[in-house]
Amino acid sequence: MTAQYDVAGLGNAIVDVIAPADDAFLLEHNIAKGVMTLIDEFRADQLYRAMPRAQEIAGGSAANTMAGLASLGGRGLFVGKVRSDRLGQSFAASLKSIGVDYITRMAQEGPQSACCLILVTPDGHRSMNTYLGASRDIGPADIHEEEIAAAAVLYIEGYLWDAPEAKAAINKAMKASKKVRRQVAFTLSDPFCVARWRNEFRTLMNELDILFANEEEAKALFEAGDFDSVLQSLRDWPGVAALTRSEDGCVVTSRGEVHVIDAVPVSRVVDTTGAGDQFAAGFLYGLTHGKDLAHCGRLGVLAAAEVISHYGARPEASLRELAGKAKLL
Amino acid sequence: MTAQYDVAGLGNAIVDVIAPADDAFLLEHNIAKGVMTLIDEFRADQLYRAMPRAQEIAGGSAANTMAGLASLGGRGLFVGKVRSDRLGQSFAASLKSIGVDYITRMAQEGPQSACCLILVTPDGHRSMNTYLGASRDIGPADIHEEEIAAAAVLYIEGYLWDAPEAKAAINKAMKASKKVRRQVAFTLSDPFCVARWRNEFRTLMNELDILFANEEEAKALFEAGDFDSVLQSLRDWPGVAALTRSEDGCVVTSRGEVHVIDAVPVSRVVDTTGAGDQFAAGFLYGLTHGKDLAHCGRLGVLAAAEVISHYGARPEASLRELAGKAKLL
Repeated sequence: MTAQYDVAGLGNAIVDVIAPADDAFLLEHNIAKGVMTLIDEFRADQLYRAMPRAQEIAGGSAANTMAGLASLGGRGLFVGKVRSDRLGQSFAASLKSIGVDYITRMAQEGPQSACCLILVTPDGHRSMNTYLGASRDIGPADIHEEEIAAAAVLYIEGYLWDAPEAKAAINKAMKASKKVRRQVAFTLSDPFCVARWRNEFRTLMNELDILFANEEEAKALFEAGDFDSVLQSLRDWPGVAALTRSEDGCVVTSRGEVHVIDAVPVSRVVDTTGAGDQFAAGFLYGLTHGKDLAHCGRLGVLAAAEVISHYGARPEASLRELAGKAKLL
Repeated sequence: MTAQYDVAGLGNAIVDVIAPADDAFLLEHNIAKGVMTLIDEFRADQLYRAMPRAQEIAGGSAANTMAGLASLGGRGLFVGKVRSDRLGQSFAASLKSIGVDYITRMAQEGPQSACCLILVTPDGHRSMNTYLGASRDIGPADIHEEEIAAAAVLYIEGYLWDAPEAKAAINKAMKASKKVRRQVAFTLSDPFCVARWRNEFRTLMNELDILFANEEEAKALFEAGDFDSVLQSLRDWPGVAALTRSEDGCVVTSRGEVHVIDAVPVSRVVDTTGAGDQFAAGFLYGLTHGKDLAHCGRLGVLAAAEVISHYGARPEASLRELAGKAKLL
């Protein structure tokens, strides 16, 4: 059966709210500079009101990947939860505008839509305040088996694992995907997330076809001291592992097959947010279009190079055009 | 049969003659700044006399590797040709002083001993003028089969391949080594050297157990556009390939087994001369002392990190102590 979608992405639906601010603003509002802090609804509301001239950009790791996939010409579906509030509508509209299908039922009540309130100081530092809100309320009822089964790859964001209902949603989606012999991909998302769920993630690997991880996440998963130990831990794993290494590019393994792909040089790294998301987009586009693993890796590092050249976690240039120029498509 | 030597190294016997100089000196003596130029005996003699306060340090790629091996506590034999002149005596004395056996008969006539006249300008640039002299006259008569057979690994410098007699010496040494089932290692030395002998080197690979190459040399050998293509070209090769990648460390392959080893961070890179030589020293020490391939690679990058932290191509600190501190020995 030909898949209707290349990838169905399952993740936290978050709107990034970005505004310039000075150090005095950070001090006044007790914002820890340069890091990501989880905040509650009350504080999110307070901070949102205080922020000057904010720009809203739909974000969320798996949603960013779907945006990259669309930029490459791929067909994507996103599954994630917002509330039918202003940010939720904005999130939905942004995906629609770039051609990603998004039909998850919006919550009519309960927590507000998730947002990441980002203050950018004149020195270029980003201080992030994330309120997960409605995004954590995704549950099995939001998973429509026929939708998931219609995608060649189900791509799951590890961040979701923290919420019990979201975990149940993941399991339902995986079953739906496996039933029709699709591939299941998972990204580890964050080394702290891995540390919280190491054993469950290790068990989950038996169910996965494709694993995405950056070096720190992979080290956390295998409790490895260096990159080569990660590589050796994966030697007998039957799936495809795509391991990103920042300026050192990526390493792609599939049992005995190992590819070492260099990063695409970037004249100036402006903001590394979204590098992993866009790598996954390039890789999954390649994989769902019959490319070999080295080619998938090259598409991944190309997409990552674009997104780190500017602010924001979604591509600004057409990835399809860039890939064409690089003779990768 | 237990080997008397860990490694027998076969290479050009060269003395580095290093002196400070200013740009006016370079201009006056027609020295191309910052590059390596091959020069003849007349010019070498002229330049040597003109050089101020010169410091003489025995060099040569394979000889440097033997020095690194000794610094790790390994037992090495060096085979290479000098004339019994002052530089030749100096070369022999330097190896003796660090415990490397060196018994190749010195030429009593013919070209002078090889030297590399190095002028270091105040801006830190090194301008090298190499006269190969007697080192190119190594021939089959200099290869004593029982000596070669007494080493666990025969290590050959690719630079030698340019001289027909040296090539005949290599073939004789390889036969002697193989006869008693020792291992034969070869380093590609230089991308230009590889370009001159690509087909012969490709054929030679059938005879090798271990190949050392930096990224540029390996790309030249396989006419590969990127590193991953090199890696895939080696997939079915039965030997061990140790590929160095400068600040990206090394990749070690042996059929399906692939190790990606990171470089050891260096606070300041002073002079990269000898990095490949010392990598080989660390790797071969590991290999001849029962270490697995990843461990060999780690010893290699450790030795390389030491030598690039100072001027000169041989270790200044005890590599054995450094390896002990790094818990590698």
